[in-house]
Order: sequence, then structure tokens, then C-alpha cells
Amino acid sequence: MPRAVREQQMLDAAVRTFGQRGYRAASMDEIAELAGVSKPLVYLYLNSKEDLFIACIRREAKALTTAVRAGVHPGLPADRQLWEGLTAFFTHTAQHPDGWTVLHLQARTHGEPFAAEVAALRADMVAFVTEVIVVAAREARRDPSLPEREVAGLAEALVGAAESLAAWANATPGVTARQAAATLMNFAWAGLGELMGGRPWAAPSGAEAVPAG
Amino acid sequence: MPRAVREQQMLDAAVRTFGQRGYRAASMDEIAELAGVSKPLVYLYLNSKEDLFIACIRREAKALTTAVRAGVHPGLPADRQLWEGLTAFFTHTAQHPDGWTVLHLQARTHGEPFAAEVAALRADMVAFVTEVIVVAAREARRDPSLPEREVAGLAEALVGAAESLAAWANATPGVTARQAAATLMNFAWAGLGELMGGRPWAAPSGAEAVPAG
Repeated sequence: MPRAVREQQMLDAAVRTFGQRGYRAASMDEIAELAGVSKPLVYLYLNSKEDLFIACIRREAKALTTAVRAGVHPGLPADRQLWEGLTAFFTHTAQHPDGWTVLHLQARTHGEPFAAEVAALRADMVAFVTEVIVVAAREARRDPSLPEREVAGLAEALVGAAESLAAWANATPGVTARQAAATLMNFAWAGLGELMGGRPWAAPSGAEAVPAG
Repeated sequence: MPRAVREQQMLDAAVRTFGQRGYRAASMDEIAELAGVSKPLVYLYLNSKEDLFIACIRREAKALTTAVRAGVHPGLPADRQLWEGLTAFFTHTAQHPDGWTVLHLQARTHGEPFAAEVAALRADMVAFVTEVIVVAAREARRDPSLPEREVAGLAEALVGAAESLAAWANATPGVTARQAAATLMNFAWAGLGELMGGRPWAAPSGAEAVPAG
């Protein structure tokens, strides 16, 4: 069996074990057994538990961003781009629940170098959403009046909402990827749409809301 | 010095250390030194690193939910309740950044019993938001037509957005609690408001969006 194929089997086993047991509790014995190889071979190919975990994060992050970007047709109106991106995102996280757990939970709290790997993924998702919001603002001819910091905050909010919904959908039987995407579009897009139309939420006096006009 | 006061000093030091170093990397030596007490006294009062971490999670979770509930005046319209709750939430997370890191990042990935503690906090936040959405639906006389699962998904999305924005606001100089709350209201409320008004996002055919009527 070629080395590349064997490595993917090891990574499959590692993602599953890290996702279900957590990084610390996962054992190299268990990963080797699940992959159907000897433990020394895992060390020979992937060097250490730390390097194996990094390889898992990189593979899962790349698969997720590739799936989202492949799902989106550039040039469509902003809401269609967001709908397609969210549908691809929730479809991928539903099909790879252990990979999502590794990225969303495990990789963020065991310090460096793992946190930096997943921060790059998150920055990529925020950049995608920021671009969609900028396109939406352009469509609504509102770009000069939507401050950059407000756009950044909106993108962070949308990515956080998507992360939360992905975990919820994976834990709730019967919630499909399309339902999760539709719920988030209902939550977010109608809101962004109102905002782009110059109709922000009417804040009580004193709140620094985005300028309406 | 009374035991209760000393214990709070130990917890202050522990929250700061766990928040900045992470659960695994934090040392009991460092916590004792920061608290100005001997390490044996920390063990005498709080038993073990695990028990100390649980005590931190419980104290920070209780402080956060107490602050949010105290900030909300029941009986106000739903959007005002949400605005008040979000303002209290972002104010508290800005004032207690280490506590927020412990709850949002550290407590979720080191397995049980920590994950269960913070899951209870999250369930409490989701319940608060769910109640606001139900009030909004009642105000709009739409409660029979908004499916329970859609409400649950919207609440998960809003809590996830708030979690994400709190981390972003703490990491971005100059973003105030009121600005973060206003951004989330712009993002979420205009969207929920449209939804409650029977104007969901117009999904492409085949998407299982919430019924419009």
C-alpha cells in the first residue's frame, strides 16, 4: 500500500479518536489500532502525537474551506453566495462531525502551535463572510456608509452563529444541513438585508448603532 | 482574614492564571504565588487543581448569568430585553476577560466534569434568548407558525454570535460593550424582526425555510 494512502488512513483514525476522546485523552495505541497499523509506523510517518494532531487540523481545515469555496458561485447576488456557502459549510460539518469537533473545540485550547492553525482557518471563514457583506453593501450602494469595524463585527457574529449552529445541528437528530443554513439565513440575512437597506435596528438613545444613511 | 475572603482571592488568581495560560499549563505554584498564599493552603481550601478549576467555572458562570439577568427588565418589548441582555453580557465579558476565556475556551475541551458545568451555563443563555424570541413571536402574534425547532436554531445562532463577538471585542482595542451589542442587534434583531413580521429570507426553491405565514 502506498505511503500516501496509509497516511490518510492514519489521519482518518486520528481525527476520529481526537474528535471523540479529545487531544489529551486520545492514545497513539488506539489510533494505530483503529488505522490497522503498528504504533511505530504511525511515529515513523507522522513523527509525534503533536505533529499528528497538526496534520489532522490542517487536513480538516483545508477540506472545509475547499468545500465552502467550491459550493459558492462568484458573481451571484450576495444573499445567494451566502446561502450556497452556508449550505456547503453545514453539509461538510454534518458529514465530518469528528473533523468539526477537532477544529471547533479541540484545536483551540491546547495552546500553540494548534491555536494558530485553527485561527488561520477562522480568519479564512471571516474573510469569506466579510467579502459577501462588502458585495451586499455594494449591491445596495451603501459601502461608504458602513464602517469597516461594523463589517468586521458583523462577519464575526455570522461566523460565530454558524459555528454554534453546526455543533447544534450535529447534536440534534433530524436537523439537516439545508435546515441549518435556512435558519441562519432567516436569522442573519433578513437582518443584514434591512441594514443594507438603511434600516438598522432602532437603538435606544445613547447606543452607538451603525449610521442609518 | 476570613476563609471566605481568602478563597475569593485564590479564585481571582486561579481565573487569571487559567484564563491566560490554559488549564493544563497553569501551575498551582503560580496560582498560590499570585494569591499571596502558600500552596498547601490552596490545597487545604480547594482540594485539587480539578476542584479549583470547577470552582472557577461555577463562580464565573454564576457572575455572568447574574449580570445578564440583572440587566434585563422583564415586561419590556422583546427587542429592548435583548438589547439590555446583550449590553449586560458584553459589559461583563469586557470587564472579566479571563473569566470569559475560562468559560468560552478552557472549560469546554478538557472533558468532564468541566464540560457539563459550562454546558449548564450555555443552556441558561440559550433559554434566556429562547424566551426573548417567544416574547417577540407573541408580540407579533406569530407563535403558532414559528416551529419550536426553528426557535431553538435561532437561539443557538444568536448565542453563538454573542460568544464570537465577545471574544472579538476583547481582542480588538477600542470596541466598547455598547458597540458590540449594537452590532449584534443590527445583525440579529432586524433579521428576527423581519422574520416575526412574516418576511423570512426568500430561499431558493428546495430550501426548507420557515413558513412565511
